[in-house]
Amino acid sequence: MSIKDFEPRGSRTEVENGLSFQPKFDELGLIAAVVCDATSGDLLMVGYMNAESLRRTIETGEAWYWSRSRQEYWKKGGTSGQVQTVREILTDCDQDALWLKVDVGGNGATCHTGYRSCFHRALVPHDDGRVGLRLVEDHKVYDPSEVYGHSHG
Amino acid sequence: MSIKDFEPRGSRTEVENGLSFQPKFDELGLIAAVVCDATSGDLLMVGYMNAESLRRTIETGEAWYWSRSRQEYWKKGGTSGQVQTVREILTDCDQDALWLKVDVGGNGATCHTGYRSCFHRALVPHDDGRVGLRLVEDHKVYDPSEVYGHSHG
Repeated sequence: MSIKDFEPRGSRTEVENGLSFQPKFDELGLIAAVVCDATSGDLLMVGYMNAESLRRTIETGEAWYWSRSRQEYWKKGGTSGQVQTVREILTDCDQDALWLKVDVGGNGATCHTGYRSCFHRALVPHDDGRVGLRLVEDHKVYDPSEVYGHSHG
Repeated sequence: MSIKDFEPRGSRTEVENGLSFQPKFDELGLIAAVVCDATSGDLLMVGYMNAESLRRTIETGEAWYWSRSRQEYWKKGGTSGQVQTVREILTDCDQDALWLKVDVGGNGATCHTGYRSCFHRALVPHDDGRVGLRLVEDHKVYDPSEVYGHSHG
């Protein structure tokens, strides 16, 4: 299926209450994509899409992002095999964010550090007012140094 | 508890593998906060915090944001009663996003449109290449016109 250009933004009422998809891309042309595991519901990563990567995602059923650090299109899993098959995409009231529910391929991990989720550390406020982190995943799914160096994949 | 200034950003290795919280705020001084229901795991909203709203959130245990549209601090639920009690905050590998797990107070809804979640519409690609939306929540929790007009709360 070839996806057409998305509808232009309408009135606030139309955006918030309508059934026309009118996504808001920011001044860099990007929209935030919150990516959760379709089965467990856990948050895996936050990525950014431009209009073209969103179109590719809808057309192919596999998640494409825009890499802000590398300034290029990035098919998640293209290097690592951790392809995201998209089960559902939702948007929020003002249509400036996306929620993707995905199944993860390959070794089942999402984070390039080897953990299942990019969100594997929780904040720990200490008594002296400093904030540290603690690991919430007890092991890595894989050792990234043995697979594909340190780049995102 | 009074939270100190967050640690400055260290090396990539330190940020990605360390246990020091070194959040990255963007060029507007903001970090994205993905907010999920602590019980169901469902995504409720995406908000943005600056360093001060994040400090207030950690200190008080209730979520504070920076409203990009109104350019002011915004305690979620300050108007609506839909206060978010924060159970846990996680960050991702590059520490440029937050994941909040919250319990929602008041009427239990999060969206100012009356729905439980701001993400209550899913994308529907049509055969002609256009993309529409469909409601995934079958009713509103409350009628916002009877409560507090149309502002976010």
